[in-house]
Amino acid sequence: MIGHLVVVGVGLIGGSFALDLRKQGLVRRVTGVGRGRANLEKARQLGIIDAIADSAAEAVADADLVLLAIPVGAMPAVFRAIAPALPPACIVTDAGSTKQDVVAAARATLGDKLGRFIPGHPIAGAETSGAEAARAGLYQHKPVILTPLAENAPATVDTIADLWKACGAQVSLMQPDRHDHVFAAVSHLPHMVAFALMEELAGRPDADLYFQHAGSGFRDFTRIAGSHPEMWRDISMANKEALVAELDAFIAKLSGMRNLLASGDSAALEALFARAREARLHRVKGRPH
Amino acid sequence: MIGHLVVVGVGLIGGSFALDLRKQGLVRRVTGVGRGRANLEKARQLGIIDAIADSAAEAVADADLVLLAIPVGAMPAVFRAIAPALPPACIVTDAGSTKQDVVAAARATLGDKLGRFIPGHPIAGAETSGAEAARAGLYQHKPVILTPLAENAPATVDTIADLWKACGAQVSLMQPDRHDHVFAAVSHLPHMVAFALMEELAGRPDADLYFQHAGSGFRDFTRIAGSHPEMWRDISMANKEALVAELDAFIAKLSGMRNLLASGDSAALEALFARAREARLHRVKGRPH
Repeated sequence: MIGHLVVVGVGLIGGSFALDLRKQGLVRRVTGVGRGRANLEKARQLGIIDAIADSAAEAVADADLVLLAIPVGAMPAVFRAIAPALPPACIVTDAGSTKQDVVAAARATLGDKLGRFIPGHPIAGAETSGAEAARAGLYQHKPVILTPLAENAPATVDTIADLWKACGAQVSLMQPDRHDHVFAAVSHLPHMVAFALMEELAGRPDADLYFQHAGSGFRDFTRIAGSHPEMWRDISMANKEALVAELDAFIAKLSGMRNLLASGDSAALEALFARAREARLHRVKGRPH
Repeated sequence: MIGHLVVVGVGLIGGSFALDLRKQGLVRRVTGVGRGRANLEKARQLGIIDAIADSAAEAVADADLVLLAIPVGAMPAVFRAIAPALPPACIVTDAGSTKQDVVAAARATLGDKLGRFIPGHPIAGAETSGAEAARAGLYQHKPVILTPLAENAPATVDTIADLWKACGAQVSLMQPDRHDHVFAAVSHLPHMVAFALMEELAGRPDADLYFQHAGSGFRDFTRIAGSHPEMWRDISMANKEALVAELDAFIAKLSGMRNLLASGDSAALEALFARAREARLHRVKGRPH
């Protein structure tokens, strides 16, 4: 049982975590902190949080658990603000989509409290945001990756893992650099590509003619282009090196396909499509839609 | 009422058209033609067709309506085969995803029956295929584009439009070249991109590690990479010129984003993401998921 949970950033991710723990009876009191007062008021009305704090430092002074669910670029300043105020037994975790930069920020700011910080990444993003998007059950069957530090006591890691499991999540452990390389490929690159396609078409004088004829394939393909610009600015900058490498590999792959097409090599294209289809149908888990 | 409908290619598209017309009582008898005997037997078991013909020429000899629902690369041979056998009053239409190449094939083969050919494109593709994927109701609220020829009598165009409307589809008219340019951007390019990403990752030695961590965003983004390789080989080849131009524009856009990222221009990236998001949320019709 967590006596006092502080959620910094009460949006889809932070709000849903609070709602699940409340529903399971695992938390007594929740305080919300964030940049948008209206969003926090909404979160209180919706029963996600009990109280609003004016600053993170003030909120954490008697906290048992702190979740940072904010864009990764905003983490260093929050770590700096809360470090002096954190009670010794308080555990801190985060929900950032990149891990090496968050770990580096924690190392630079948390001092002798570093061992109490368990880096995490719930894979349950959506193109919706804000407290109104939060819901109990969001994490059911969703993966949550923890990237523990050498300084973490195993029992502290278990505490965080157990809370995510109580939300219905499937918890696994990874090294931060491995995490960032994998997610550059399976998440950050697809977001860049979806943003690129939407922005390319939106800038054309006859854009609405294109959008009118967009079918369900286009809508699914571009769904993630509805994601939050600031969040994705921070993720792409935080994971710049791995993401540039993925973009280079992907641009080379696309250029190769373009040349197969231009030269009329239909057999090579069909073989490439067949390899892609085989992998999509048989190697990617989860519902096909 | 159509006395005798011949469907060449009894898969998702052709089979669903037949099922809808049967359900509406708009067709008396349906004959299926195709390359795969087992698929045609399945279609007969499922009540999609009444009879199987060994050749398209034989099947169309007493047909009132012929639907060609086959990869566009297979259309010229079928047009050539059926042209001499088509009864004078028989209407022919197709469901090809490209229109200029299909129109050119019809012009080269149908002779004085060209006026009875109404080119069409139902936008209801999926990554499933075969007779088992067919279902009544597939076309409900789906767009169907007809690209009539100067040689078509308006009444013949209306007959085909009315049949699609009876299936619940929303019918609109376009020029074939306009059609092919628009679909190069909103359909053919996204398919190339999804195939490229899946093939790129599938070829890595640690591919399964990537696929294990794929979330719902990745699954939606790559859904269309499960599409039929031969169909997409034909579409990309048939619309080569427009698709190469779209690939060039898209590669240039992605390269520009890659350079913004590498140079750390986070403000320009965020502005690009914001333009993409705005267009995705407010200019693309249909359900967000």
